[in-house]
Amino acid sequence: MKKLIVAYIFLLGLFALYLFYYHFNSSSETALEQVQEGIRGDMNEKYVMVTFQAGHDYWKRALKGFEDAADALNVSIEYRGAAQYDVNEQITVLEQVIAKKPDGIAISAIDPDKITTTINKAVDAGIPVVLFDSGAPSSKAQTFIGTNNYNAGVMGAEEMAALLNNKGKVGIVTLPNQLNHQERLKGFQETIEKDYPGIEVVEVKDGKGSEPVSRKAANEMLAQYPDLNGIFATEAIGGIGVGSAVSSAKGKNKVKIVSFDTDKQTLDLIKDGTISATLAQGTWKMGYWSLQFLFHLNHKLTADSKLGNISAPPLPANVDTGVSVITKENVGDFYGQ
Amino acid sequence: MKKLIVAYIFLLGLFALYLFYYHFNSSSETALEQVQEGIRGDMNEKYVMVTFQAGHDYWKRALKGFEDAADALNVSIEYRGAAQYDVNEQITVLEQVIAKKPDGIAISAIDPDKITTTINKAVDAGIPVVLFDSGAPSSKAQTFIGTNNYNAGVMGAEEMAALLNNKGKVGIVTLPNQLNHQERLKGFQETIEKDYPGIEVVEVKDGKGSEPVSRKAANEMLAQYPDLNGIFATEAIGGIGVGSAVSSAKGKNKVKIVSFDTDKQTLDLIKDGTISATLAQGTWKMGYWSLQFLFHLNHKLTADSKLGNISAPPLPANVDTGVSVITKENVGDFYGQ
Repeated sequence: MKKLIVAYIFLLGLFALYLFYYHFNSSSETALEQVQEGIRGDMNEKYVMVTFQAGHDYWKRALKGFEDAADALNVSIEYRGAAQYDVNEQITVLEQVIAKKPDGIAISAIDPDKITTTINKAVDAGIPVVLFDSGAPSSKAQTFIGTNNYNAGVMGAEEMAALLNNKGKVGIVTLPNQLNHQERLKGFQETIEKDYPGIEVVEVKDGKGSEPVSRKAANEMLAQYPDLNGIFATEAIGGIGVGSAVSSAKGKNKVKIVSFDTDKQTLDLIKDGTISATLAQGTWKMGYWSLQFLFHLNHKLTADSKLGNISAPPLPANVDTGVSVITKENVGDFYGQ
Repeated sequence: MKKLIVAYIFLLGLFALYLFYYHFNSSSETALEQVQEGIRGDMNEKYVMVTFQAGHDYWKRALKGFEDAADALNVSIEYRGAAQYDVNEQITVLEQVIAKKPDGIAISAIDPDKITTTINKAVDAGIPVVLFDSGAPSSKAQTFIGTNNYNAGVMGAEEMAALLNNKGKVGIVTLPNQLNHQERLKGFQETIEKDYPGIEVVEVKDGKGSEPVSRKAANEMLAQYPDLNGIFATEAIGGIGVGSAVSSAKGKNKVKIVSFDTDKQTLDLIKDGTISATLAQGTWKMGYWSLQFLFHLNHKLTADSKLGNISAPPLPANVDTGVSVITKENVGDFYGQ
């Protein structure tokens, strides 16, 4: 009888072992198939986003896009940035990031010329680098993901024309020395000239990215052109200054204002009717597709790798993330993002 | 003793069951996590690529990109197209594709105006649609992925300038009525004017996309300007005609030719020295990113879904897939793709 018990125990133990191994093996096989079939990384992979004026509201949605892509792809990310608007500080931060040999770097360049050497150092060290929001065209980074500022100016002109029923006098407050603002201005002016003969751009002034300077510029325009119908501001601080000038001199909404970006103050001025429309950039998309592109470079899911062809540039050269128009009707969508 | 055996068997059975359930549950949990963490579809998802002149060599690399993305994402694809360069046939094909309710459609539009209604029908039926290679800007499709033809013209000018050591007389053979060719021409001409004062564009002729017409156009130029140094052809058939004219009249390589695209005949003429350089489009990338974007729309991995914001356009507005320069040095890379 004792032998029988031992035999039973032995057989049952064997059965238990069989079950154990059967399920252990089948579960690891399933896992392997899934890793091969989907696009999925490893939590040990680390991708870094580098900006300037770190912590500024403007970067929040870009970082959210970067995070959402990291969740989808199962990889890790880190956010670093110069605290100030200072290219030397950004170079130092980028040097520190390169030293840690991350799997990819997405950077928004303060100064395209000065940061290029350090960007090239990263690329030469084999680290994938993409540029977003603010580019460095002569660097070795593989792609640029951001707003096509000329097209944004075109949309600004179309929105202004709609607000003015295609006729009237318009002034512009901009930053004449910055390339992205020159392009916004050019897109706006060329579209008005080509498509809206009833509208005339009567004045272009430098707002210096400062609220009081932009307010003063707008006040001068309003004095010189008492029949002015609209003002286009190519950046947010300028738009706030212009809004303040128009409210004091003429009253809200007497001169239509089209501005740029979606900081809280601008959204508030949209809500209360001071600013008629603002152009929202696709910042979430900048972050999301930056990480996707870095992942594709890191995992060799690119044109050159797939074609076995060193002459094929691996990624799209340029991605225009687009802009959308925010007015009183849809401003609620944009709060708290 | 019998009771003891029963108790043993009972306990061992319990242990076996415990093991069984423990592994069963942990294995299904692992599988679930992986599906959530990676970007991975289902083989029942079907995405369709629609072109015109189906089967033409030009589409091969775009389709390869579409296939490579499908492999990576674990989804199914289908390729459909009008056999001819005929917009009505393409409309019929697109109608048939819509009727099958696929999970997404990537289409290269023959005629932006005539196909727009049918594209909008697909979008209104809730089918994600992206445009690649040849767009339909006023349609409801969410994005365009293709060559920025102005930038391609800029690269053509830079390559021509390098071949001519920045001085000489240049002619152009193009298709003056097609938007993409107008943009290539404009990018070429504006770059020469702005950056290469030693080069003069002396003549622009219509090659009508025909080899004999382009040959005749080139022969007329060579007769009128005996000191002509280079000819830029904005499409492949034109380049072949120009090559034939230059070879007969002057001998190979006596007049530098910069052409477009990478059909076998053009590659052969690069290899034998008749054509100095050709501009290769990023066709693999058009196919690959078209499918990625359709997948992102279908799975709501887009800006509007992630921000809970109907005003944010879901995808980048415009993706410039870039061009690369092919010369005798790297022509080997491009055969057989």
